Amino acid sequence: MKIARFDAGDGNAQLGAVDVAAATVTSLAALGTDDVVTAALTDPAERTAALDGAASWALDDVTLLAPVPDPPKFMAIGLNYRDHIEETGRDAPKFPMFFNKQRTCVNDPTGDVVIPAEAPDRVDYEGELGMVIGTRCRRVGRDDAPSVVAGYLVVNDVSVRDWQAKAQTMTLGKSWDGHGPTGPWLVTTDELADPHGLAMKTFVNDELRQDTTTDLMVFDAWTQIETLSTVFTLEPGDIIATGTSSGVALAMDPPAFLAPGDVVRIEIENIGTIENRFVADSHQP
Amino acid sequence: MKIARFDAGDGNAQLGAVDVAAATVTSLAALGTDDVVTAALTDPAERTAALDGAASWALDDVTLLAPVPDPPKFMAIGLNYRDHIEETGRDAPKFPMFFNKQRTCVNDPTGDVVIPAEAPDRVDYEGELGMVIGTRCRRVGRDDAPSVVAGYLVVNDVSVRDWQAKAQTMTLGKSWDGHGPTGPWLVTTDELADPHGLAMKTFVNDELRQDTTTDLMVFDAWTQIETLSTVFTLEPGDIIATGTSSGVALAMDPPAFLAPGDVVRIEIENIGTIENRFVADSHQP
Repeated sequence: MKIARFDAGDGNAQLGAVDVAAATVTSLAALGTDDVVTAALTDPAERTAALDGAASWALDDVTLLAPVPDPPKFMAIGLNYRDHIEETGRDAPKFPMFFNKQRTCVNDPTGDVVIPAEAPDRVDYEGELGMVIGTRCRRVGRDDAPSVVAGYLVVNDVSVRDWQAKAQTMTLGKSWDGHGPTGPWLVTTDELADPHGLAMKTFVNDELRQDTTTDLMVFDAWTQIETLSTVFTLEPGDIIATGTSSGVALAMDPPAFLAPGDVVRIEIENIGTIENRFVADSHQP
Repeated sequence: MKIARFDAGDGNAQLGAVDVAAATVTSLAALGTDDVVTAALTDPAERTAALDGAASWALDDVTLLAPVPDPPKFMAIGLNYRDHIEETGRDAPKFPMFFNKQRTCVNDPTGDVVIPAEAPDRVDYEGELGMVIGTRCRRVGRDDAPSVVAGYLVVNDVSVRDWQAKAQTMTLGKSWDGHGPTGPWLVTTDELADPHGLAMKTFVNDELRQDTTTDLMVFDAWTQIETLSTVFTLEPGDIIATGTSSGVALAMDPPAFLAPGDVVRIEIENIGTIENRFVADSHQP
């Protein structure tokens, strides 16, 4: 099931099941929760039953919201696609290089992304597969890793390259407010059991920039869960962005960084598409 | 006021005001909150009035708990004391080098700290001044920074040096579960307006290892708030650990890393002391 969090126009967030072919979303209010992880962990038969007689909207008539607006943790991994490592000219890491996106950077699947007044010149996109953790867990081996996932979504790991380069930890280039678009919905694991081998494409103003499959990860999704959970407890709602491929603006010659008005669209096969307009900052520093 | 979160023996967490000279803690139940940030932001006169006729305990008879058990974010800064930079042999950073400790690593002021089975050989301490944010805020200039702080506490930024070195981001060496002891209580800003110039000492089994003052920060507390909040929103309960001084085990010759049974005590003038025993891991990898 594709579980969306959306606003039907009344300013409230609610959950619904998306039918992509019909371009509709049907209320899951009968589940009695507004938490997408709780809904995803509900028995599939119960989820389906909840749709019986429920209200339905055309997708065009609702605003999709970030499926997980307040993740306890928002992790990401650097240099994890073979083609992206090549374009950066760096050596492949021998060990996964994780960093945090701050939870405050989560944005909606079609939300505007602000190009910061303090750092307008080197804003970049990174199309990524995201996992959402369903089960509080520690020390999960890779064979058990699929069982702790609530579902999958698309992430744009928006990166401010000059601020990212100010420190080896990259912390201040990865988490400007709104620089974590996610969505368009959460695809549950009963519908998508394995997120590897999916086509993933990033477009800027309809120009194809990134074109890969999630098979090109150096450390796959299961190894990432194994490694992270060796060290610390994963919590329901934690988001893990699993890395980006070649084709980022930084690696182009010359780099084609984002400017106000640019629209970045990221598509992952069997998941969906997020599309965010980049806009100038109203703040004057 | 020193606001402690503590368990009087019934298994429940509650808030109280600590009188260090009398070695007592007096219930703040009249404030009607169990959130230390909310209590710290309450008018000082109302906090004092809440103590009138309230239950009181000897500090020895209660268990102090982490003042903020679930911080939205837990940030820390590397290489931020001049003497620590010297002992590492690195250049002073031109820009603050922030990283995340994961929120799941928070530990109590006297809680046991597990030396991980997977990484038992290079576990280190870092005594640090911690700030707790009180007000949701963005783009706070250094002159306004004191106004967004709820209070101050002591942090041990426990570091697993071999895992820290596996990636430039340090993420997997800073956040093993329990590797963020905090406390012993939150000192509010009406009692402690300026956290600079405070003596800070770390002892291992009563041997003095770190001996500094918080004036030796390269980027002071206010600059840290200014820099972080330039990039992202700070939330009530966010913890910022402001850096450690020279004297860490890694820099000793030979390094004297922590072993099961070691007790690490960190004292900061006008704040208090946390003391944690390091113990072997019951987990068998």
